[in-house]
Amino acid sequence: MNSQHLSTSKSHGLLSASIITIGDEILIGQIVDTNSAYISKVLNNLGIRVEEMLSISDDKDHIINTLNRVTKPGRVVVVTGGLGPTNDDITKKVLGAFTGARSWVTNEAQLNIIKGITARRNMAMGTLNRAQADVPDTCEVLVNQKGTAPGMWFDYRDCILISLPGVPFEMQYLMEQVSQKLQQRFRLTPIYHRSLMTFGLPESTLAEMIADWEQALPSYMKLAYLPNPVTGVKLRLSIYDYLIENDKNNSPLASAVDEQITKLRAIIGSALYGEEPDTLHSVAGRLLLKKGATVGTAESCTGGKIASLITSCAGSSAYFKGSIVAYDNSLKTAILGVPTETITSNGAVSRQVVEAMAEGARRVLQTDYAVATSGIAGPGGGTPDKPVGTVWMATAGPEGVYSELLSTTGDRERIIERSAANALNMLRLQLQSSSTNFKLHM
Amino acid sequence: MNSQHLSTSKSHGLLSASIITIGDEILIGQIVDTNSAYISKVLNNLGIRVEEMLSISDDKDHIINTLNRVTKPGRVVVVTGGLGPTNDDITKKVLGAFTGARSWVTNEAQLNIIKGITARRNMAMGTLNRAQADVPDTCEVLVNQKGTAPGMWFDYRDCILISLPGVPFEMQYLMEQVSQKLQQRFRLTPIYHRSLMTFGLPESTLAEMIADWEQALPSYMKLAYLPNPVTGVKLRLSIYDYLIENDKNNSPLASAVDEQITKLRAIIGSALYGEEPDTLHSVAGRLLLKKGATVGTAESCTGGKIASLITSCAGSSAYFKGSIVAYDNSLKTAILGVPTETITSNGAVSRQVVEAMAEGARRVLQTDYAVATSGIAGPGGGTPDKPVGTVWMATAGPEGVYSELLSTTGDRERIIERSAANALNMLRLQLQSSSTNFKLHM
Repeated sequence: MNSQHLSTSKSHGLLSASIITIGDEILIGQIVDTNSAYISKVLNNLGIRVEEMLSISDDKDHIINTLNRVTKPGRVVVVTGGLGPTNDDITKKVLGAFTGARSWVTNEAQLNIIKGITARRNMAMGTLNRAQADVPDTCEVLVNQKGTAPGMWFDYRDCILISLPGVPFEMQYLMEQVSQKLQQRFRLTPIYHRSLMTFGLPESTLAEMIADWEQALPSYMKLAYLPNPVTGVKLRLSIYDYLIENDKNNSPLASAVDEQITKLRAIIGSALYGEEPDTLHSVAGRLLLKKGATVGTAESCTGGKIASLITSCAGSSAYFKGSIVAYDNSLKTAILGVPTETITSNGAVSRQVVEAMAEGARRVLQTDYAVATSGIAGPGGGTPDKPVGTVWMATAGPEGVYSELLSTTGDRERIIERSAANALNMLRLQLQSSSTNFKLHM
Repeated sequence: MNSQHLSTSKSHGLLSASIITIGDEILIGQIVDTNSAYISKVLNNLGIRVEEMLSISDDKDHIINTLNRVTKPGRVVVVTGGLGPTNDDITKKVLGAFTGARSWVTNEAQLNIIKGITARRNMAMGTLNRAQADVPDTCEVLVNQKGTAPGMWFDYRDCILISLPGVPFEMQYLMEQVSQKLQQRFRLTPIYHRSLMTFGLPESTLAEMIADWEQALPSYMKLAYLPNPVTGVKLRLSIYDYLIENDKNNSPLASAVDEQITKLRAIIGSALYGEEPDTLHSVAGRLLLKKGATVGTAESCTGGKIASLITSCAGSSAYFKGSIVAYDNSLKTAILGVPTETITSNGAVSRQVVEAMAEGARRVLQTDYAVATSGIAGPGGGTPDKPVGTVWMATAGPEGVYSELLSTTGDRERIIERSAANALNMLRLQLQSSSTNFKLHM
């Protein structure tokens, strides 16, 4: 146990971290490394600064060299990947050797989980699976309830070495335990930050809008613009080192951030849809719940994406009833009741059709609100009049029917995502507005 | 110019690469590093093996230490980020110092582009923007038509050092030039690899199944297991170094891989659904196109996810007609025609209901095939009999109706994704099997 050393090093500043991803899939560009970003976010929120992220191959020498380099005093090293059951997964072996393990121990709790998982999947438990419960005697096991590979926690010299499976879902589950253990072990001072979610304003417009407020911020607060082409611009306000120096009375500082956030909310107005981790669909869901109202969708170009987003929220069955994906025009008529001549005279991608779809969905699905889309996601199907990226969106509710035209660019996926986001934002705005002076801003 | 050294080092093996991303945004987990994956794919396809990817902060010492470590003979080092106009962007300065620049040169071509961009944006060109055209005299400029920061190519000792802006769009544009220059300079031999996509077999079962085949592989071929909890296990067979030594006649080696792939396909059988970049939904789409058949979905717990996956493929309107998301039981009856008593006596999550949903969808959507799901995605709604993760799936088609029970684990998102993947796999198997001796394997 080296908490002594770690405490010492801590007094020189923050605990620091390295994140190492092992495996070829990332190195050959087959997959994008999302794990490191997740781990980094968790560590940063704990007040541990990530110095470096690395992706390396599952080559023994390369792993050892890297570990030798990054295991500095006061360092938390999180390694993901290479814990699968097959022979090319060598992380566990290498970590055992690196930390000087003298024997291997079977972790009974993990073994039982492996048995359960293989049984539930109607598989015989093979030798390879069984061996996943064996760990070097130098580690403390982080039992993985979500998969067969256990996490491992090594107190190695003056640093903490943590090994997690590369499956994002399992890694995220185990990071909970890691987070708790780190907080128990060290006197960490979490970074305080709050993030506002905005939609519909470009970064530069937003910047001009809040310029005076930003100028007047105290110097120890840091504002970051984090634009996302689908979900809008996130504004994050943080306090870092100042908090560290003053951690005995951090609440006045947190309150100062809270005050600034209140001011900022007022300046941004209706473009503000929530605060992290809110999403357009979670906010719409919350508003529906509050109203005791239900919603459904009628989708053409979005192909079920809006329904899929709404139902990604736990508890959505309380307000979401269902959806008609009417990709084929015959279904717009047969199920949603859009008159054939409305389609013939205006085209399927038109204000008339999308409004009729929204009204039809409300009627057929027996909901209070409905969202509809009809557009050209491409790459084919565009015309000079209605190029790829032309999308009509409508919402229908007790207040009436509203429609908007989105003219966007990008590949098929991006156009579908943007259409879904804009349609959900329309729903959110309709739900947020009072029914008397309702006005839609996009 | 050091191409001599590089040629020499090349005879010892492949050109290798390091990719370095500079900047805090990635280290704090705010954005996922997609640039490295892109660069890696380009380099791998050229036959340059990426040894390591790193993300580091824009700290001078950290950058210099890292460069000292990675600039090995025969190495291509690609650095992205830190080329912005503001003072915290230090990459160019550091690279100049590292490569021993004695003076700075204004690149007129880039300066003109900067003038054009600032004019188009109605900005006055400031000193900061103008300075972006200045580069160290140790580099060759890669003119950036898409932005203000030029790329830089350094012949540094025995390696190539390349600096690119971090904006993905600009980086991708400049990687074209990098790719061409690398091919002109070196006799590169692209890596040959093929990847088979499997579904429904755990990694360990698959490993045991193909153990004999794997054992008998020539030593110059490398097999990788790349499991994905949703899309199945990918098996990638590659040849690297051997090809380099024998690049005058590389086609026999590629054929040897092709032969092994043919053998492997036969061993895996119906668990094999395609070859990269195939997905379960793209394969199902292709089979439907070939048959001239149409499909629709009736979704409960998957909430539109299956429809969304199918319509993510360009051209899917040729075979996808639409979908009924019947989240609320009343819609299962009202739209899909599932008898109320079938729901009452068996529960909504049952073989009977999901089969009636599939048949209903086929009838209502007027399609040849239909896929249906009904299950408990959680986190609420589970019972001892039917815990969270219990999902019934059915396919209906001219051959009949088939249903399967999936008992899976994970969070809501994972359960929805797995249900969608399993249902699409059922459709794929039904479409692949001849109608006479159709038997479903999961």
